Amino acid sequence: MSTSAKDLTVTDVRLTPVLIADPPLLNTQGVHQPYTPRLIVEIETAGGHTGVGETYGDGKYLAVARVLAEALPGSRVSDLNSLAERARSVAIDEAHVETGVDVGGLRGTQSADKLRLSVLSGFEVACLDAFGKAVGLPVHALLGGRVRDRVEYSAYLFYRWASHPGGTGEPDDWGEATGPAGIVTQARRFADEYGFGSFKLKGGVFPPDEEIAAVRALAAAFPGRPVRLDPNGAWSAETSLRVAEELRDVLQYLEDPTSGTPAMAEVAKEAGIPLATNMCVTTVDEIPEAFARGAVQVVLSDHHYWGGLRATRELAALCHVFGVGLSMHSNTHLGISLAAMTHVAATVPHLDYACDTHYPWQTEDVLTSRIPFHEGHVRVSDAPGLGITLDPTRLAALHERWRSADPWLRDRDDAAAMRVADPQWVTPTVPRW
Amino acid sequence: MSTSAKDLTVTDVRLTPVLIADPPLLNTQGVHQPYTPRLIVEIETAGGHTGVGETYGDGKYLAVARVLAEALPGSRVSDLNSLAERARSVAIDEAHVETGVDVGGLRGTQSADKLRLSVLSGFEVACLDAFGKAVGLPVHALLGGRVRDRVEYSAYLFYRWASHPGGTGEPDDWGEATGPAGIVTQARRFADEYGFGSFKLKGGVFPPDEEIAAVRALAAAFPGRPVRLDPNGAWSAETSLRVAEELRDVLQYLEDPTSGTPAMAEVAKEAGIPLATNMCVTTVDEIPEAFARGAVQVVLSDHHYWGGLRATRELAALCHVFGVGLSMHSNTHLGISLAAMTHVAATVPHLDYACDTHYPWQTEDVLTSRIPFHEGHVRVSDAPGLGITLDPTRLAALHERWRSADPWLRDRDDAAAMRVADPQWVTPTVPRW
Repeated sequence: MSTSAKDLTVTDVRLTPVLIADPPLLNTQGVHQPYTPRLIVEIETAGGHTGVGETYGDGKYLAVARVLAEALPGSRVSDLNSLAERARSVAIDEAHVETGVDVGGLRGTQSADKLRLSVLSGFEVACLDAFGKAVGLPVHALLGGRVRDRVEYSAYLFYRWASHPGGTGEPDDWGEATGPAGIVTQARRFADEYGFGSFKLKGGVFPPDEEIAAVRALAAAFPGRPVRLDPNGAWSAETSLRVAEELRDVLQYLEDPTSGTPAMAEVAKEAGIPLATNMCVTTVDEIPEAFARGAVQVVLSDHHYWGGLRATRELAALCHVFGVGLSMHSNTHLGISLAAMTHVAATVPHLDYACDTHYPWQTEDVLTSRIPFHEGHVRVSDAPGLGITLDPTRLAALHERWRSADPWLRDRDDAAAMRVADPQWVTPTVPRW
Repeated sequence: MSTSAKDLTVTDVRLTPVLIADPPLLNTQGVHQPYTPRLIVEIETAGGHTGVGETYGDGKYLAVARVLAEALPGSRVSDLNSLAERARSVAIDEAHVETGVDVGGLRGTQSADKLRLSVLSGFEVACLDAFGKAVGLPVHALLGGRVRDRVEYSAYLFYRWASHPGGTGEPDDWGEATGPAGIVTQARRFADEYGFGSFKLKGGVFPPDEEIAAVRALAAAFPGRPVRLDPNGAWSAETSLRVAEELRDVLQYLEDPTSGTPAMAEVAKEAGIPLATNMCVTTVDEIPEAFARGAVQVVLSDHHYWGGLRATRELAALCHVFGVGLSMHSNTHLGISLAAMTHVAATVPHLDYACDTHYPWQTEDVLTSRIPFHEGHVRVSDAPGLGITLDPTRLAALHERWRSADPWLRDRDDAAAMRVADPQWVTPTVPRW
């Protein structure tokens, strides 16, 4: 290849950890911290093109990212298979990887491989962005092209407090939602402002009967609209089956009602509604047993921890072969990841449900402009690369917040955040109910 | 996208059926015809770039290809996901699809979907070739980049006659091979001229004891070199297990010893060597049961009937998840398909065995120059697109042969070819032994 504007050789990689405002959203492990860490990956090529990616920003991800960033210059942004191999070989002291459920992500058991894949995803997206710009094509065209011109997202409803304990963090005007009425009000605003046509309630926060009541209230307020409930594995199989029984007529699917493949399989057999997951199946190693046992009917992919957009497409193909549905999971993220999700989702023929996204909860971003929703959809960009522009001033400000922040904020820990309000709080053991 | 040299819009599609010389190679269904049909797909873009692909050329493929060719102009060569959707929707009268084992391919049961996917592959490769040329990148870079700079192939040994019945077809100097000595001589020439380091014998032609003797002779002549045997499902499970027992110490794997998933599973359980297949698992629909029953340990992918290079990569990912090995199958093909196989094989990290190729048996080609083997490997091209050049004069001559040929030659039928020598021949029912 020539050293023209199409020279795809990586010359520079910049890693910028940031802290972004996060509202006091509740889940079964605790509450979101006032700020959450994300890592912004910028790549520059010899041809003068730049690419940007985003992934988890906790210290353990940052450590792996630094190793990968060191190794990248000299390779090409099109060398994505080699990048994946390289990421998989980054040495991680397994002793430093907690083996329980991720305290900040509720996405199954942690592992060194999952850490590597999460970091890889940020680099892969940055490479695809630069690759696309270099050849004048949108990222979706590098993934085989879009099969739809907009991608549907779902309203992500949370039980929440009006503000963080002690009034820390950035204020917002969403108010408290700790019961059916608050959840319906929240849903109404999401429907009005974003046009979302389906709703997902993060559960596992209150006793199941209260969450059943909230789902029933949603179904009554929005008749015919898909509603989902996700207690993040907080229930026993018995409780899960009772909830399924009570909500069978109104739920589109029940997400991770219980923990582990055997319990999920037990529930799936009798539930009478599909079970979705982003906890039971989060790596390829978990697929054979879970699929063989019929433990899950919908995999909620997340390009961050599945290892990028190309790995997400492979997962989609695999799910299709086994007759398992696909949609997308989301964790606190910025516009870079929303753009990346939208590109890959646009290329997957069998995307069976509206994707999750936390994006409306994030009032801060590192882009020059926020990505808009129309009728609950994000338009698929046909501009070169991801079709977004990084705002260096905003990036610098959010990085400065990270640099000067209390170290405890640099690693997401929802249980620690909960202890600010309730010093006696310990992460509940499962099944919680 | 602008209407520059990067304009990827398809403006023209040309389909050129050709007949290429094929030696009198024997298999369990009969013998190769003196000429075999292939279809050359040429695509032209608004930016002035061309792309070329190759697939099966029998009438039933040609009919589907004509529908797809009609529909293609106006879409972009990067719209590969849409192309796949479009190919899957081509109407085929199921009544015209034979449901037995393909008479000309020995690649499992025929189906309308397999027909569509085989045609799709020729178009997908042509699109990737044009796409790569338009953006100045090799096809492998559009598949995530190569992880190796050369791809290993295996010598494909056949029982064969010295010439076709009645002296038809194009003569060659390979001579007859109908026993161990002939097979070893053939293998020696392949090793000397091409540097192949491993050997596959197409079996199912003679009673199992004769083929056991041929494999033993190969193992003795080339100690330590991988040897495989492929009777195309001709044996019972009992015979398969007897052969496995006798050849366990010298075979790298046994390919399709018996027909159907249940029998393959029965053999796999006791064989003590891996079973490979390009008959038991030839479509995604066959995967769940075959993998669940442990019927196959190596899938021999073929980008033609799996639906292209991107589908081959998805299959590779799927096999890796389930701990099943991957290599590549080959049927009579030209340099276009060898180039395509090499590009995709170069991008698959877990390519566990040397790939099969018939290419050395094809003395004719539609390229300006033959693709060379060095030490049994094909170098991966870094030139834009596939890195090959179509020779219009050769293409026209081989098309003229197709145009003026006896119609029976336009559809591959190894049993019909055998009846020229033996009018009583009928396709053997399985198990044959």
